Amino acid sequence: MINVTYSGNEQEILNSQKVSRLQSIHDNLYAKKGAGHDFLGWLDWPSNLSDSFLQNIKDTAEEIQKQADVLIVIGIGGSYLGAKAVIEALKPHFEKNPQFEVLFAGQHVSGAYLKQLMNYVEDKEVAINVISKSGTTTEPAIAFRFLHKYMEDRYGQEASERIYVTTDENKGALLNLAKDRGFKRFVVPDDVGGRYSVFTAVGLLPIAAAGFDVNQLLKGAKQAEDELSTFDAENNPAIKYAAIRHALYEQGYTNEVLATFEPKLNYVQEWWKQLYGESEGKEQKGIFPVSVTYTTDLHSLGQYIQDGKRDLLESFLIVEEAGEDLELFEAEQNADELNYLAGTSLHDFNLVAYEGTSKAHLSGGVPQIGIRLQKVDEYHIGYLLYFYMLACAYSSYLLDINPFNQPGVEEYKTNIFKLLKKPGYETE
Amino acid sequence: MINVTYSGNEQEILNSQKVSRLQSIHDNLYAKKGAGHDFLGWLDWPSNLSDSFLQNIKDTAEEIQKQADVLIVIGIGGSYLGAKAVIEALKPHFEKNPQFEVLFAGQHVSGAYLKQLMNYVEDKEVAINVISKSGTTTEPAIAFRFLHKYMEDRYGQEASERIYVTTDENKGALLNLAKDRGFKRFVVPDDVGGRYSVFTAVGLLPIAAAGFDVNQLLKGAKQAEDELSTFDAENNPAIKYAAIRHALYEQGYTNEVLATFEPKLNYVQEWWKQLYGESEGKEQKGIFPVSVTYTTDLHSLGQYIQDGKRDLLESFLIVEEAGEDLELFEAEQNADELNYLAGTSLHDFNLVAYEGTSKAHLSGGVPQIGIRLQKVDEYHIGYLLYFYMLACAYSSYLLDINPFNQPGVEEYKTNIFKLLKKPGYETE
Repeated sequence: MINVTYSGNEQEILNSQKVSRLQSIHDNLYAKKGAGHDFLGWLDWPSNLSDSFLQNIKDTAEEIQKQADVLIVIGIGGSYLGAKAVIEALKPHFEKNPQFEVLFAGQHVSGAYLKQLMNYVEDKEVAINVISKSGTTTEPAIAFRFLHKYMEDRYGQEASERIYVTTDENKGALLNLAKDRGFKRFVVPDDVGGRYSVFTAVGLLPIAAAGFDVNQLLKGAKQAEDELSTFDAENNPAIKYAAIRHALYEQGYTNEVLATFEPKLNYVQEWWKQLYGESEGKEQKGIFPVSVTYTTDLHSLGQYIQDGKRDLLESFLIVEEAGEDLELFEAEQNADELNYLAGTSLHDFNLVAYEGTSKAHLSGGVPQIGIRLQKVDEYHIGYLLYFYMLACAYSSYLLDINPFNQPGVEEYKTNIFKLLKKPGYETE
Repeated sequence: MINVTYSGNEQEILNSQKVSRLQSIHDNLYAKKGAGHDFLGWLDWPSNLSDSFLQNIKDTAEEIQKQADVLIVIGIGGSYLGAKAVIEALKPHFEKNPQFEVLFAGQHVSGAYLKQLMNYVEDKEVAINVISKSGTTTEPAIAFRFLHKYMEDRYGQEASERIYVTTDENKGALLNLAKDRGFKRFVVPDDVGGRYSVFTAVGLLPIAAAGFDVNQLLKGAKQAEDELSTFDAENNPAIKYAAIRHALYEQGYTNEVLATFEPKLNYVQEWWKQLYGESEGKEQKGIFPVSVTYTTDLHSLGQYIQDGKRDLLESFLIVEEAGEDLELFEAEQNADELNYLAGTSLHDFNLVAYEGTSKAHLSGGVPQIGIRLQKVDEYHIGYLLYFYMLACAYSSYLLDINPFNQPGVEEYKTNIFKLLKKPGYETE
């Protein structure tokens, strides 16, 4: 389903020592042992989820579409990027008078953004899905404070029927509020961290509300779960991707540039950056994840990638089949010198551009990983995201890093709370 | 106007050797000597441009706004990012039924994008600004081939009055076509490279058409030109920024993370990545430019920046005064624990978040540069972009790199043309 290739010598990487290392990681992973094993709920999530859970998501999405023109999804980090990645990959670039929109808030703290958002939805019917495990993560809490008031001012009692909460099952500020006001609730599972949560209600409710087929998304994820659970270092693309990037890291390639020729995958790249950056970037280790979109960025960072400092590895995420496409035609006047391309589809042009770019960067000293995805639809995106999550676990364990914690995000939060004199932090 | 600070010891950086190096770069730059001196047209562009040039831009923008509902700007790289950066910085996040829209094409090769774009503008009146020095850069040429046909099919003869061309003054495919069809023409100057072209017609026409004040933009740029031309290593922020980042590069900080708390500056960051990456990334040298938006990415790459591999330097682009803003209020039910913030504006929250983040990342071993901009409006953005261009010249010359060429972008192009058997490339 996903094909991973490497520009160098695979046999050298997959030597017996590395394979036995990967084997033991595999065994620990599936035995749910090893660092962070309390957060492995995502590993068999696609095969474990119940029909009634999924039906509830779909029914609620339908209810939201009936009652509203706009769903505002409030979340940050893993409570934002999974849904955003899938929706951006699947929705059209332009829409005339969209029937239903999914917009986001709480992914930053911008007064202008929130104000303009509230103004924008003035003449539309609104529903809200607020996603936060604790309910006290500052950014979504700020956005929800404004939007909750907006909804109560606008809808009165009825606001409660338009607010959907995705939070902890048993505790927390948002759970208490939801119970008090009678908001419909969905669960952020205890054993799935934010950046691994796209297939839980965190990702599924916004994706379903946006009109996409969550059955197919989960079918793709389950296919990945099944296929990628086998230990086969040479043929399991998740293990292969992890092994290659780790070998390159050991050789001093410490920046990974994830390149795609499909602009719709920009937020899949953002999601990938969180997944890998937050999983691996600890103890002064880890590959720094960076993204580019080609051919756009061939006219920007391309020069650096070709000729700059040689600590870059490039991984190309290539889509094999186009969705909508156009074909170049012959023009009477060939001033632009493009007649030689008549009959070529734009997708085929991009595939050739990939080949030409890959060769050029390789000759510039940038080692490469190719990741080929058949097409961009719910099923294949579901497969891809599961693939990246699983590979990330292998990759982190190869660095002796716990993939499932994020100790480094506390320090800036504590600083901010101290500076703002949050109760409990004033004295320090 | 712009204040640059450094987390380390400035005196150590600005030692006598470095200062005399910078002095000689300064002298060569303003004497228009040194590598790439044929491309220094941008240096005194703001003070050199004529009233009639500017009046022509503004009149044309007005004409476009009268005849059309949508301007499609076709360009890539420097013919795209300057206008995009300024427009995104200044336009609102959301607009209900916008009166006039500026959309982009030719910045990549996506059949779905172009098809959906043509469908989107079906019921709107359309004008086009195609920007390409040669007229044969593949991506914009492809987009224009489709859109030119679209315009001719839709408007017939009248299409020629709706197409505006920004190209070479004396030669090239687009110039010839423009003369033949009678398109109104603007000039891409010979002595200004794409990534330094935002203040020429390349950037100005789309920015003016989008409804922004190009007089103020250029006033800011001219203020920067005047203020930053003086050699004063300690007080000239452009020289200071270049000196600090070069010193950090020499210490092994080879990735610069440009961080902002203002999401509207995302495309200023993209523009900056092209400017620095394409100017410096040569001869296996140069700082790799990366961008993050906070607080969004504190919940993503933040973990890596705090604790990952220590080759990162962080430059914060901080906006001191908010435009539109909101203020937090006290809520009866304090479940979200935010009442302690009542009376704080969201902009003030971001300034505190900056302080807390800066301290945290500093203690994690990430050296920092602070770049403070008073506010986001035409004048200050004009100043900022000039500042970054000038600093980039200093910074590249400190690396003994010609800031104005891009030798590494030929190889992939040649490969692509060979693979596609473009006339002239078939035999190889």
